[in-house]
Formats: sequence, structure tokens, C-alpha cells
Amino acid sequence: MQRGEKKIYMQEVVTRDGFQNEREFVGTDKKIELINKLSQCGYSKIEVTSFTSPKAIPMLRDAEQVMKSITRHPDIEYTVLVPNLRGAERALLCDVDEANLVMSTSESHNQTNLRMTREESFRGLSEVIKEIQPTRTAVNVSLSTAFGCPMEGDVTLKTLLSWVERFAEHGVRGITLCDTTGMAYPTQVSEVVTEFKDRFGDLQLTVHLHNTRGMALTNALAAIQAGADRFDSALGGLGGCPYAPGATGNVSTEDLVHMLELMGYRTGIDLEQVLDAAAQLPALVHHDVPSQVLKAGRRLDLHDAPSSIKECLGN
Amino acid sequence: MQRGEKKIYMQEVVTRDGFQNEREFVGTDKKIELINKLSQCGYSKIEVTSFTSPKAIPMLRDAEQVMKSITRHPDIEYTVLVPNLRGAERALLCDVDEANLVMSTSESHNQTNLRMTREESFRGLSEVIKEIQPTRTAVNVSLSTAFGCPMEGDVTLKTLLSWVERFAEHGVRGITLCDTTGMAYPTQVSEVVTEFKDRFGDLQLTVHLHNTRGMALTNALAAIQAGADRFDSALGGLGGCPYAPGATGNVSTEDLVHMLELMGYRTGIDLEQVLDAAAQLPALVHHDVPSQVLKAGRRLDLHDAPSSIKECLGN
Repeated sequence: MQRGEKKIYMQEVVTRDGFQNEREFVGTDKKIELINKLSQCGYSKIEVTSFTSPKAIPMLRDAEQVMKSITRHPDIEYTVLVPNLRGAERALLCDVDEANLVMSTSESHNQTNLRMTREESFRGLSEVIKEIQPTRTAVNVSLSTAFGCPMEGDVTLKTLLSWVERFAEHGVRGITLCDTTGMAYPTQVSEVVTEFKDRFGDLQLTVHLHNTRGMALTNALAAIQAGADRFDSALGGLGGCPYAPGATGNVSTEDLVHMLELMGYRTGIDLEQVLDAAAQLPALVHHDVPSQVLKAGRRLDLHDAPSSIKECLGN
Repeated sequence: MQRGEKKIYMQEVVTRDGFQNEREFVGTDKKIELINKLSQCGYSKIEVTSFTSPKAIPMLRDAEQVMKSITRHPDIEYTVLVPNLRGAERALLCDVDEANLVMSTSESHNQTNLRMTREESFRGLSEVIKEIQPTRTAVNVSLSTAFGCPMEGDVTLKTLLSWVERFAEHGVRGITLCDTTGMAYPTQVSEVVTEFKDRFGDLQLTVHLHNTRGMALTNALAAIQAGADRFDSALGGLGGCPYAPGATGNVSTEDLVHMLELMGYRTGIDLEQVLDAAAQLPALVHHDVPSQVLKAGRRLDLHDAPSSIKECLGN
């Protein structure tokens, strides 16, 4: 395995994709404070919130207020999730840098999650794209279940790429391939990313991984080796999956950055500041978070000999 | 990333390295029952117990009874940890297939864990090797902190390989490179394994990974790509690290096998039976275990649409 050289672009999703799965409302001020802190950490993009119905996701009912109150760093793009025309109008009024649209590549998952068929989603999102395109706001489409659907199983590469193609024809700037429930595995990621880059080299590709089955870091490396250089990740590894209760969520920002930097990749992220922000999460969400580096520290954070250790013969 | 082809040898360490870290005694009958079940799962080796002082590790005070009572499968080697001459004598009386000796490549860690200098350890283990060599029992040496020491930091490749060389000169069959506190990262693993295989190609190499910082699966792939084909792993990911409270332990057998089999590697492991055994662990150790696949299921264990799911717009 060669030492990494290239720049990897990190996109933080904790305040949208992470918080969205939390039960207890995180205060608007706390959200703003966290995003402002994250804005000092070297990300290339931050997904701030979602302009969805406040009834559907009460956690993000303060979308306008958050989006308008944060201090935007000139080197960072601020993106928001936009489900429909109404959401697009709200997002544009906040002058977001990017609108992140979402649909599933699996029929069952789209119907379960979005309550419509994929074709209905595509028609709706096409309207949204037309609304946004005359503005300065860029359009990204997140394709869920790109590496498998928890109800249908594998989504074929042909199906996946046909949806990419349809959005590419609409002139979107970027596509995110989402491993919604952590079904991706390294050789598959490698095949999908290679094919994507071959056919859609001009699109901005983001890989969105979940650590549901422990493979997120491995999949990230497979994606990088196949040409990807841009990842969504969530502080603390927040974000869950209703299909796998107790399983971990999004790939943890700090775990991913920690590994990539050790390997020589340049993420631009200030890991110490990220860990500092992550350490505040348990108090915000009232539970432990899955991140490993947050618990164990960086590999060279050295320790004194434990005072109480017995002869343990551990290896 | 190429599809894997080769055979990967799996060595289960849960009843020794896993249980050793548990507070509450696991009954002798339960241990025997678990090992007998694991013996039906396709492992190439099972580390049964440790012939250490019952006072030092009360959990494994039933070493003789367990070793003599299990039903040994003809295709599996049964290994035990042996700390000293007394342990070697006890192990030989039980006719073990392999004795697993252990010392640290870091001076501080050896002194903290084994209460002697590395040179003292080496002299003691040399005596043990001489005692065992005339018998049918093979000798393996586990080198702790091979990828870093939590107190000293990096262990140089030169230091590591000098210890390998000294044991190789003593004619041991195998060496295990242990990432005792999860400090290994993929490019480092790649470099270490490549160098090891170049210089000591005749030794049986085992890679023993911990998932303390989330990189165990990635490190396993890096090791395989560099020529390794043999791994220790623990059912449920049991086994901890006193230097990182709350952090996860050994790489989980089921998570590693799940990934490798998806990639085309042949582990010979019956994953369904392994998951069945892992599911019994929480009742044995009275707490949740870190394994991810145990919680989330295999990637193609499909689900019905959750009845209570809201429009969640998850990606």
C-alpha cells in the first residue's frame, strides 16, 4: 500500500445528517456555536441543516435561523438538504452555497423514506434543479442506497449509473454516492467509483459512508484508490440507521481524518480542534458517540503506565 | 482494489485474550461449550487458555480442566499462552498443539506488563523454547506493541525485526505481530509485513490487530496485500486495552470474516455459526460486545420496511 499524497476534501454532516437522528432537540444556539467552531477546522463543505417540513423533522425546524446566524468562512461551502420546491425557495432566501437533493436508487427505499416512487422523486427534483440553476447556488444530488438496499439487496451498477446519468443530463454539479445502511464493501466501492470516474469524470463525486458493519474506513481507502477525493463524514460518527438498531452511523470525521493523515493524505483538517468539538457532542445529544479516536486518542497521544495494571500478559 | 483470491487462516482468541479482560468469571463448562462450538466453525487455530498463575489471571485458573475437556477437531490447532517454564510444563502435560509465548518489543511495555526487562523476558522464553522443542508442540512468539507502544510511541522497524531475528535463530515456528493498543495504520502495516516476509519468509506470520482506533479491518487488508494470510481475531471483538478505557478490543472475528468473504477471500469460516456463537457472548460476559455485524447483520440479511419509520430523508 503506497503512502497517500493527494488532497482529500472533507465535508461535515453532523448538524444535519447526525442531529436528524437524535431524539432530543439540540438548541438553536448550540447548533450555531458548533457550526461556527467547525468552520475553523478546515472542512471544504459543511452541511448545515435541512429545509424540510418542521413537522417531518422537528430537530431541524430552525433551519432558517441557523443558516442565517452562522459565521460563514470564505473557504467553506455551506450546503443544505432540499427535499422539494418549497425547500429550495427557503434555501435560496438564505443564500446557501449548495442545495443537496436526495433520492434513493432503490424503489422500496425511496417509497419507504420519501413516500413516492423514484420517478416521482426524479420529476420533483428536476423542478427543483430548474428553480436553482439560474442562481449562484450549486446543485448536488445524494443517491441513497447506492451500495445496496436493506429491503431489496444489491442495487445494480447499471441502475445506479442510470440515475447518475439522468441527473448529469440536468447539469447538476455533483453526485454523492450514499452507503445509507452500511452495505458497501471495499471491492464493490472500488468497482463503483472506478466506473463513475470513467463515465462522469466532470461531476464532483462525494462518497458518503456509514460504519454499520465496520467497513467505513476500509471503504474510504478503496474509494480513494479508485479515484475519489471527497467524503461526507459526521463528527463523533453520529447518525443512525433505522434498519439496524444499535449499529453505528456515519463514518466518524475524526476516525477518518486520523487514518488519512497518518497515511500521508492531506485533509486540511485540524484534528485537534475537531476532537475538541467532538468531545462536546455527548453533552449535546445526551449519549455516548461511536467515534473511536475520541475515546482512545490519537495513536501518539502517549500514556503513563497505568497505576493499577496487573501483570496481564496482554498481547 | 482487486478481488481477493487467497486462503486466509483465522485464529480465534476469545476464550484467552478476550475473556482475560473480563471482570466476572466465566464458568468452566461455559468455556468448554463455547470452544466446542467454535471448533465446528472452520478456524485453523484456537487459543484456548493461558497457563499463567491462577493468582495473576483468576479468569483462566481452570486452564488444565478446559484444555483437557474440550473436544479437539483434527483440522484445528489448539494453542495456549505460556509465560514461563512452569506454564510450559503444565501446557505440555495437556498435549497442546502450540505454545504461544509473549513479550513486548517496547521496554516500557514489557516492564509494565511482564514486570521484567526485555532481555530478562528473552532469556526466560529461550529456556521455555528449549523445553518445548523436543516435543510435538510447536512454538509461536507473540511480540506485543509491534506497531507502537502507548508509553514510548513508535517502535522502530529495526527494533521489531531484531526481536523477530533472535527468536527465528531459536527455531520458533511462528511469530505474531501484535498491535496491542491499536496504534497500527495501513501504510505502516504494509511496510512492516512486507519487510517481515522479505526477511523471514519461512516463519509462520500471524497479524494480531486491535480496533482501538477503528482501523483494524483496514489494517488487515493492508497486511493481506503485503503478503500476510493469518490473523488472530476475537469473537464479538472482545478484549480490551487498559490504556484506552471504553475503546474497543481485538478485531472482531465476525466483522473481519464478513468483509473478507465479501471480497472473495476464502476464510473457511462458517459465518452463520460464528454469529450464532457471538450472539451468546453478552450473556456470558454480562455486557454488550463491540462487534458490528452481530448488531447489524450481514449485508444481505434483508429487512421489511420499518413500520414506524417517518419520512426521514436519510441518505
